[in-house]
Amino acid sequence: MNNNFEKLIEYFLKFPGIGPRQAKRFALFLAGEDKKFVADLGQLISKIKESVRQCPSCYRFYGSVSGGSSQCGICSNLNRDNSILLVVEKDADLQNIEKSEVYNGRYFVLGGTIPLANGSAKGGTGGLRFRELFEKVKVLLQSSTREAKHLEVILALSATIEGENTSRYAEKILEPLLSKGGQEIKITRLGRGLSTGTELEYSDSATIANSLRSRC
Amino acid sequence: MNNNFEKLIEYFLKFPGIGPRQAKRFALFLAGEDKKFVADLGQLISKIKESVRQCPSCYRFYGSVSGGSSQCGICSNLNRDNSILLVVEKDADLQNIEKSEVYNGRYFVLGGTIPLANGSAKGGTGGLRFRELFEKVKVLLQSSTREAKHLEVILALSATIEGENTSRYAEKILEPLLSKGGQEIKITRLGRGLSTGTELEYSDSATIANSLRSRC
Amino acid sequence: MNNNFEKLIEYFLKFPGIGPRQAKRFALFLAGEDKKFVADLGQLISKIKESVRQCPSCYRFYGSVSGGSSQCGICSNLNRDNSILLVVEKDADLQNIEKSEVYNGRYFVLGGTIPLANGSAKGGTGGLRFRELFEKVKVLLQSSTREAKHLEVILALSATIEGENTSRYAEKILEPLLSKGGQEIKITRLGRGLSTGTELEYSDSATIANSLRSRC
Amino acid sequence: MNNNFEKLIEYFLKFPGIGPRQAKRFALFLAGEDKKFVADLGQLISKIKESVRQCPSCYRFYGSVSGGSSQCGICSNLNRDNSILLVVEKDADLQNIEKSEVYNGRYFVLGGTIPLANGSAKGGTGGLRFRELFEKVKVLLQSSTREAKHLEVILALSATIEGENTSRYAEKILEPLLSKGGQEIKITRLGRGLSTGTELEYSDSATIANSLRSRC
Repeated sequence: MNNNFEKLIEYFLKFPGIGPRQAKRFALFLAGEDKKFVADLGQLISKIKESVRQCPSCYRFYGSVSGGSSQCGICSNLNRDNSILLVVEKDADLQNIEKSEVYNGRYFVLGGTIPLANGSAKGGTGGLRFRELFEKVKVLLQSSTREAKHLEVILALSATIEGENTSRYAEKILEPLLSKGGQEIKITRLGRGLSTGTELEYSDSATIANSLRSRC
Repeated sequence: MNNNFEKLIEYFLKFPGIGPRQAKRFALFLAGEDKKFVADLGQLISKIKESVRQCPSCYRFYGSVSGGSSQCGICSNLNRDNSILLVVEKDADLQNIEKSEVYNGRYFVLGGTIPLANGSAKGGTGGLRFRELFEKVKVLLQSSTREAKHLEVILALSATIEGENTSRYAEKILEPLLSKGGQEIKITRLGRGLSTGTELEYSDSATIANSLRSRC
Repeated sequence: MNNNFEKLIEYFLKFPGIGPRQAKRFALFLAGEDKKFVADLGQLISKIKESVRQCPSCYRFYGSVSGGSSQCGICSNLNRDNSILLVVEKDADLQNIEKSEVYNGRYFVLGGTIPLANGSAKGGTGGLRFRELFEKVKVLLQSSTREAKHLEVILALSATIEGENTSRYAEKILEPLLSKGGQEIKITRLGRGLSTGTELEYSDSATIANSLRSRC
Repeated sequence: MNNNFEKLIEYFLKFPGIGPRQAKRFALFLAGEDKKFVADLGQLISKIKESVRQCPSCYRFYGSVSGGSSQCGICSNLNRDNSILLVVEKDADLQNIEKSEVYNGRYFVLGGTIPLANGSAKGGTGGLRFRELFEKVKVLLQSSTREAKHLEVILALSATIEGENTSRYAEKILEPLLSKGGQEIKITRLGRGLSTGTELEYSDSATIANSLRSRC
């Protein structure tokens, strides 16, 4: 196959969860579709930046409605609780939490977790939005002086080594803000314990310990 | 095949997790082993009741040591905390919790969970040891008057519908004991939340709600 | 999300093997990539018809090299055997067979198998290239008069009900060509039997029967 | 746990496909069953040698019926074809082939395949019945002089490296019999090709080559 076909396969290889075989299948699939299909798809992809906007407040992606607010629907919703900020890894986490309809506060999309280099976290924070998180919390603190007396930042990262490591790093980043006088700021993490369907016989020690500690 | 061979297959079919194909493989496997192997195995199985004793206090199975205490090693261990009782479904749960080395109280093996009949729990409590649980808690309460002022019963059942339903039933059974004057008795359940490895993107609503509620 | 974002997700949903969750992940992934990435990818997709050519002889896709032959590399290769034609379902089959390096004849890509409607094959031949197959075989017969005295058409379709049904249909389509005087044309199918790794204990009756019949 | 309980677990560990966790579950399961159950099971296992007989002709296991033939039902069936002998690895293969109802000849259970030691077959033939196979074929040859002029031995072993290696070894063992004057003896193997459900896209090169070779 020639360069452009191979190039397309390489692009598909960068898609999340796609290996060589499926990347090739995608390219062959497109080759067999009609001209209008590939032209329209190409157009939609080229223009994705214009049809999707990244919220400057929580950094999630949302469909832009011309003339609308520059913030996403959640950030511009005045009925949501400004005193809680849920920090998630990615858009898909946020969407799943919204679907559960148990949270009415604010969000912040961090952009992932710090990758482990050789078992320990070196090698930088991989383009994650820690600086933006710092600014976001500062802004909420300022606004909360007018509204409320406290702010809670919930680090809702994955219950994995990477997630815990990233939580620790976020806590360090936010530490300077903890000492701001006159306001209460609290950093918490999601509770650990038995998730739905867990059987004791097959649980790891950490989950057993967590579920005992958080018994209620 | 004749009756005795088929009968043996039927016995193996009652083993936990064994289907028809594997039951047959077991029988054929034994047919191919030498005489001493099957004689010894048959003997060990016939005498299992003598080599394993069920603790009259927590109802778990343990190897009997002639002349020893009639209680199991955990129940007869004076260093374990009499003020906490962990109620588990089965021996394997108890063993996994002991392996995690995070619990130093007492145990009670309930014998399973109440099976759901047509989606709701009818049809009896399936031979579970609720009466024995009631007695055990009563005994601990009496002994704890001498030792401590409180008793906690942790219902450590599976995080499933059956498990929760069984927990509710156990709470009802133990209710009369809650009103005993002069002592504090508390019934708790294991904490629900993210178990190790959980990713937010794939969590169910109940787990998200639980992990938010038990954030810390 | 707005229309264009949702539209893009719908396009990804048509990709082979992609469900709603992954379609959304693809769209969110692209939203997060930089402008150059999405512009280049959109371009490559829009132009796929120009970078990939469908061979007018075997109907497989291949990278077009400007100024080259209008036939693909296999069809224009004079060293390949004109007396055998292997009919496959799709490009991926052809590529896998080429990789095995055991076949040196010609190919024809049928485009799939006839879908089963309500358990039996009604509802048309789903855009498959039966007419083109007929023409291709006719051309090979004419050329083979000059070269050889025989032509073999191997129906190399999947060993499934759909595949066998499609093979039967292809045989019927090619039947008129079988009576052409002066030449020998033979229609065969791939041999059925044990494929690599098969164990007798788990084989279906058809595979056992086939492997006994084709024993050698 | 004491010695007898641990010993029982060790016995279960030798069962085909059973690991430590399941072996323990079996032992705990038996500990919880009533006295009659374990007594009966122990009895059935101890006496398995008496309730199952190994056919002295084909070496498969079958239920013994007192006063019956010393050969199994297949070997003593006069309507089965004496001119074909199917050599299988184990009883389960034989049963699956009988279920398919496509074979009416004789059987011989070899007892397994030669294990590969360090990638190549060293280390002996692992207790397989090669000597008995030699004798069996010799007997069939003698009887076939009276009945028929030919004998076919089909090596129906798994389509794996171990299976093929074992087939080669069996051929070598039987070689001296091939030169017996006056009779035709043929050694074959099951046909290789596409087994039911196979798709060309995912087939290995050997299967593609075999299915091309055995096309029909």
